[in-house]
Amino acid sequence: VTDPPTIDLNSDVGEGFGVYRLGDDARILKVVTSANIACGFHAGDPTVMARTVELAAQHGVAIGAHVAYPDLAGFGRRQMEIAPDELSSIVSYQLGALDEICRRAGTRLGYVKPHGALYNRIAVDPEQAAAVVEAVAVHGSQLTLLTLPDSVAMRLAHAAGLPALAEGYADRAYAADGSLVSRTQPGSVIDDEAAVVERAVALATTGEVRAIDGTPVRVWPRSICIHGDTPGAARLSSEIRGGLERAGVRLRAFA
Amino acid sequence: VTDPPTIDLNSDVGEGFGVYRLGDDARILKVVTSANIACGFHAGDPTVMARTVELAAQHGVAIGAHVAYPDLAGFGRRQMEIAPDELSSIVSYQLGALDEICRRAGTRLGYVKPHGALYNRIAVDPEQAAAVVEAVAVHGSQLTLLTLPDSVAMRLAHAAGLPALAEGYADRAYAADGSLVSRTQPGSVIDDEAAVVERAVALATTGEVRAIDGTPVRVWPRSICIHGDTPGAARLSSEIRGGLERAGVRLRAFA
Amino acid sequence: VTDPPTIDLNSDVGEGFGVYRLGDDARILKVVTSANIACGFHAGDPTVMARTVELAAQHGVAIGAHVAYPDLAGFGRRQMEIAPDELSSIVSYQLGALDEICRRAGTRLGYVKPHGALYNRIAVDPEQAAAVVEAVAVHGSQLTLLTLPDSVAMRLAHAAGLPALAEGYADRAYAADGSLVSRTQPGSVIDDEAAVVERAVALATTGEVRAIDGTPVRVWPRSICIHGDTPGAARLSSEIRGGLERAGVRLRAFA
Amino acid sequence: VTDPPTIDLNSDVGEGFGVYRLGDDARILKVVTSANIACGFHAGDPTVMARTVELAAQHGVAIGAHVAYPDLAGFGRRQMEIAPDELSSIVSYQLGALDEICRRAGTRLGYVKPHGALYNRIAVDPEQAAAVVEAVAVHGSQLTLLTLPDSVAMRLAHAAGLPALAEGYADRAYAADGSLVSRTQPGSVIDDEAAVVERAVALATTGEVRAIDGTPVRVWPRSICIHGDTPGAARLSSEIRGGLERAGVRLRAFA
Repeated sequence: VTDPPTIDLNSDVGEGFGVYRLGDDARILKVVTSANIACGFHAGDPTVMARTVELAAQHGVAIGAHVAYPDLAGFGRRQMEIAPDELSSIVSYQLGALDEICRRAGTRLGYVKPHGALYNRIAVDPEQAAAVVEAVAVHGSQLTLLTLPDSVAMRLAHAAGLPALAEGYADRAYAADGSLVSRTQPGSVIDDEAAVVERAVALATTGEVRAIDGTPVRVWPRSICIHGDTPGAARLSSEIRGGLERAGVRLRAFA
Repeated sequence: VTDPPTIDLNSDVGEGFGVYRLGDDARILKVVTSANIACGFHAGDPTVMARTVELAAQHGVAIGAHVAYPDLAGFGRRQMEIAPDELSSIVSYQLGALDEICRRAGTRLGYVKPHGALYNRIAVDPEQAAAVVEAVAVHGSQLTLLTLPDSVAMRLAHAAGLPALAEGYADRAYAADGSLVSRTQPGSVIDDEAAVVERAVALATTGEVRAIDGTPVRVWPRSICIHGDTPGAARLSSEIRGGLERAGVRLRAFA
Repeated sequence: VTDPPTIDLNSDVGEGFGVYRLGDDARILKVVTSANIACGFHAGDPTVMARTVELAAQHGVAIGAHVAYPDLAGFGRRQMEIAPDELSSIVSYQLGALDEICRRAGTRLGYVKPHGALYNRIAVDPEQAAAVVEAVAVHGSQLTLLTLPDSVAMRLAHAAGLPALAEGYADRAYAADGSLVSRTQPGSVIDDEAAVVERAVALATTGEVRAIDGTPVRVWPRSICIHGDTPGAARLSSEIRGGLERAGVRLRAFA
Repeated sequence: VTDPPTIDLNSDVGEGFGVYRLGDDARILKVVTSANIACGFHAGDPTVMARTVELAAQHGVAIGAHVAYPDLAGFGRRQMEIAPDELSSIVSYQLGALDEICRRAGTRLGYVKPHGALYNRIAVDPEQAAAVVEAVAVHGSQLTLLTLPDSVAMRLAHAAGLPALAEGYADRAYAADGSLVSRTQPGSVIDDEAAVVERAVALATTGEVRAIDGTPVRVWPRSICIHGDTPGAARLSSEIRGGLERAGVRLRAFA
């Protein structure tokens, strides 16, 4: 008897600030198994964080720190030149803050997924990647780093003895080399819902997906990222979950 | 044989931000036994916090979280109306952030001293005081709350089974009821250095100090607060320490 | 032949920040005659301001500076203790910034409506009211101050020779003394759409409205405030406009 | 009879924020003829701006807007990727805010000198340079752009019919091509006071200065930049002024 294929679904939540709201967290948290919670640097504030952690805990969803550059005005999507030791302190600050908010709610922090420009940067930049890995490594309890497959950050985390896992995207086109096709290119985002569900199932059951040129690409994701802030996101995520369950895939958090 | 009288000296440090510096932390940390470190809300940023924690650890100085209202522009000195549950999350956020920065440096957080307007508010406001006490209570390790004598926050902390200690001021005039004379009143700040040293010794050895009208006031402080950001602060703090040592007072952190 | 009664409709717009959006500005700007545009202190950023000013100009809507306390996290709804000279500089800063953004778009600033906690404060606090009036007075072109009827700010503006006008609320209950019933009281917000439209017509044609106890209250508004950030706000505002037009009221900006 | 050579001395001032102070503005403003005043984005707040404008006006010093990226934490020294239309709004916002603060003080804005990373960027990046030039061009009164010699921004300003002038550095080494030697290179900063004064006189009287390899470099500056935030800055600036006056150079603002 073989174990069924297992996958995690993760999504960004808790991205409000003050009176501002973003995304439909209440619906998304009914679907995903892991919640990337903003830590107050690109979005989120202590109150939003506390509310989101409680909601995630109620739904039994694993909690990850969605650490980011300090850039509320740019939502953490702008590249920033930050010295590695400063970046490492910035990441530690966010990890500690969310960890304490989790403790308040009787739950705990399980993983780290860098956000936006920082996420992209540590896939390729050894200095910034090492700074993030160091902050994760010195945390009191063991945290898993969630990142792009074969990223520099993943390799550095593994070298440091830390767990690091890859995630895949069901609604984004891949190039033949396994990288994501830039959003500025035609066909980079897959709009057809049936196609997105089919790709999610392929990623979860075979670990592979067709690149934009038809080549099969090995992603081997332990998690699939669900976008929560686009129109129709909550419904699409429900369909992805339904498609995975119909395909016999077991949904389970990795952390 | 009686134990010698023991006192702690605390001071606010780590109050820079970005390129800005405030106070002479390097000198102050050679004198005090406890360091109130800003947590990024009224002052401080992750880099300043990391640098200050390391410096405090090198000097064997105990580390406290100088938690504050979110008000960099007003340096945390302005009263803010914040709902208790929001305030509690705000305090937890800061405690967690500094705690993690301490862990990076191989040291640990020992106590909490609220800053500025928040410090004054929780001496009298039961709602905000309870919010702060709750955040301190749910922290993973036991933290001591440092506050005004007989403050509402101290009473709530004791009722919750948390350690809370009083601090005294050697350079501020007291009213006969034990409160501090407002800075807007003549004679509220004591400028004469010899008088300040003498009052520090009185506070440490007898627990009492003369009020502005001559009445003896019981303060029973476990710590004396040293102001680090006034001209001559570093020298005055050295003289206070010297005076205490000559009077046979033992200097020791409480946390 | 008598001139028809004339009224202005004003609403808060441009209250997004970075990726955040608030309210349906595009619809609201088709209905109102005056737009209170956030200036970057409680909401808004230079890009949001530029976009909103352009949209208002396209619709021929008058532009007002929705000046506020510096409090993005609290959306300008928290009381702040700010020294009058600081407050005056803060208001000038915002007026100048929005004025320049208007000039870029080939249009001009016409009036000032303070926001949230500042709006309430200057209705009763002579020091803060004088600080705001001073900033309005030194502006290069003449600006009208839009405020509560009989507010301290209105009286100070008139004393300084500045135009100041009252606004009324069609969806809020008034007390017999002309003040608004606090939102914490039952019946303070009028939900029935037909009643809101009827009250708007009464305010515009008679200047009066029934207080919560039935007493007629003289408001004599030159403008009626439309809330844009509540569910159904855009539709309700259309109905108010329709009701006014059917009643023969002429809609025209005051600035 | 020939007119005496004329030069302007400019320096960055008003770079405090809240309780923070930076540099000795009171002394610097006695020496320079032009003051680059921070506008609240990399440093400065409305209160600091008002105080600095008044001080500059008292000393008869011309006022320039020291516009910057929105980056208080990084003091505007970090490169930022900002879309040109957003950057243009950001610059307009700052120009308008300072202009209004000047009006309050009975004085007026005369020029614009971009700060830090933005200053360096618009010397070479046509998109960001055009965005800044556009914001300067649409300002109500004519402003002069102060920039590096032969910068892209200067050429675009001239093409748009705007005045743009070059500034020189007496305490920085030049390469033979007229660019500044990077601060990371040995010899990039000239510490010898006599040499700095001599170079200032050469720049003011001949328009030229020796490059680090001895080649004469044509700078033709209309202003010399004085650094105000380094130790000894105030005294060095006095010596530069004294040296220029002894050499018969007339000190006069360009704006």
